[in-house]
Amino acid sequence: MTAEAEQLAGRILKGERRALSRAVTLVESTRADHRAAATALLEVLRKHKRQALRIGLSGPPGVGKSTFVEAFGMMLVKAGVRIAVLAVDPSSARSGGSILGDKTRMDRLSRVASAFIRPSPSMRHPGGVSRRTREAVALCEAAGFDVVLIETVGVGQSETMVAGMCDLFVLLLAPAGGDELQGVKRGIMESADLILVNKADGDLKPAATRTLADYAGALRLLRKRPQDPKGFPKALPISALELHGLDQAWAEMQALAAWRKAKGHWNVRRAGQAIHWFEEEVRAGLLARLKDDARVKRTMAAHGAAVAAEKISPDAAAAEMLAWLKG
Amino acid sequence: MTAEAEQLAGRILKGERRALSRAVTLVESTRADHRAAATALLEVLRKHKRQALRIGLSGPPGVGKSTFVEAFGMMLVKAGVRIAVLAVDPSSARSGGSILGDKTRMDRLSRVASAFIRPSPSMRHPGGVSRRTREAVALCEAAGFDVVLIETVGVGQSETMVAGMCDLFVLLLAPAGGDELQGVKRGIMESADLILVNKADGDLKPAATRTLADYAGALRLLRKRPQDPKGFPKALPISALELHGLDQAWAEMQALAAWRKAKGHWNVRRAGQAIHWFEEEVRAGLLARLKDDARVKRTMAAHGAAVAAEKISPDAAAAEMLAWLKG
Repeated sequence: MTAEAEQLAGRILKGERRALSRAVTLVESTRADHRAAATALLEVLRKHKRQALRIGLSGPPGVGKSTFVEAFGMMLVKAGVRIAVLAVDPSSARSGGSILGDKTRMDRLSRVASAFIRPSPSMRHPGGVSRRTREAVALCEAAGFDVVLIETVGVGQSETMVAGMCDLFVLLLAPAGGDELQGVKRGIMESADLILVNKADGDLKPAATRTLADYAGALRLLRKRPQDPKGFPKALPISALELHGLDQAWAEMQALAAWRKAKGHWNVRRAGQAIHWFEEEVRAGLLARLKDDARVKRTMAAHGAAVAAEKISPDAAAAEMLAWLKG
Repeated sequence: MTAEAEQLAGRILKGERRALSRAVTLVESTRADHRAAATALLEVLRKHKRQALRIGLSGPPGVGKSTFVEAFGMMLVKAGVRIAVLAVDPSSARSGGSILGDKTRMDRLSRVASAFIRPSPSMRHPGGVSRRTREAVALCEAAGFDVVLIETVGVGQSETMVAGMCDLFVLLLAPAGGDELQGVKRGIMESADLILVNKADGDLKPAATRTLADYAGALRLLRKRPQDPKGFPKALPISALELHGLDQAWAEMQALAAWRKAKGHWNVRRAGQAIHWFEEEVRAGLLARLKDDARVKRTMAAHGAAVAAEKISPDAAAAEMLAWLKG
């Protein structure tokens, strides 16, 4: 560990936002020396065992996630709760990032000293998104934030990924016309601890009430999970615009987190997630060897050429290759 | 190779349907002795280098895939073309299979001697679906079928998988009310060689014409692919019910296949697919080692326990595990 990294660790632990920003940039880098520095930094910070409440937030485009995060974040800040917001944008690999790309969408929150907002980086290596996010979460925890909110759009794999690294998972939805469940995947419904039906205001109020009843019904159909106290998972109406229901939503989150801590579910869940990410990293590392090791790559290419020339079947070639990798 | 397997190979090459059925059952089995027998059988059959036209067929539920396959298949049979139909049902892992599960949906085709219909098996190992399907296709080719149609529902990964093992890919759609592109993923649009808008009959005819124009427009926006002759990919109206347009669809498929063979694209595509499946099998095999090798499994579990106890971070544990696997 270099003196520079040690100094950075110290500044992060003191809660300096600029140091935190620099560290997040470091974990986002794929340069080998940055990777090594990031790993060393995280190892130092890990020993301090600081924990935040990790809240995963997802919902389809257009439900008002930015408005919610701004309003919810400002409410926490006023209550003296320090909040960090991280975004995971699955589309950023192509589009160069859209969520939080424009900080003006969270105009007030982004200017508050006790809040930290980090847009989704443009990801050239989609496989690295989960590690980068987990590391950024760890950095925010070390910097002493009370809440780390991880926001993502409800499409693709990113939702499952975020659900796999948070202490509680919130699904934000808009009032709908009684049609299908807004394309919300069943798997994600099963991950949700709290469903917030936003825009329960003005003309949309009756529709919000109906949507709420639909989702409350859907939640009752789900199998009871041991990590849920009575009444959870729960659906609530909110209006991020008129600031209705945000305090109740926060009270429910705190009650759920407290219950899970008291009953031991919190630690069990974090341990399970840690094992999951360890296994994911091993799998990713194994597969990376096929691309990164020059000798392995050459042997793969030679077998591939034999397959293309129909000298050997794909499956027989794979069996040979696997035997070679083992030996 | 046992005498029994040798006899089975001989009967398949003669085009015996019952032998083909037994062989497909063999490749669907996960029993080690069955696996070995299937591999030996496929190796013998491969040497005969028989090729069918592999047609991938996909489309959302309710577009009339079964009616189309029945009508299209009967037309081919009457023209002396032998057709085999294989189904890939991504939901069958849970539901126990639904596509073609009820052969009565293809009542006539299933009773024709020169046709072969194989429902989707119930898949306990989703990872094995692609191998099983590729092997079943190879068996049908060895049995002398002229056309192998691989049918799947347009949801999840199965569509991409089927597109990756066919010579041409057909997307079957229903007339729609000018709304979104029926949830057809862009990636799949890009794989389609032919879009057939079904139900271009009766009251739905005007809607079918509009839908056709929408899709023809969408296809024109796609990047030109080298493997396409002028005018492809193409959208056509059909009615599987009134038997309109099926002959033209078949003529287009034949023209496309002939052009690709003449220009060398056919072989290039098959070679590319073979390399792809070889690489997929290597990746699957590498990952399987983590679960199947007892010593590896024990070491994974020990590292996982250390991670859960927070003695080591998930990433550091993964790095140790990968070094152990290599050494």
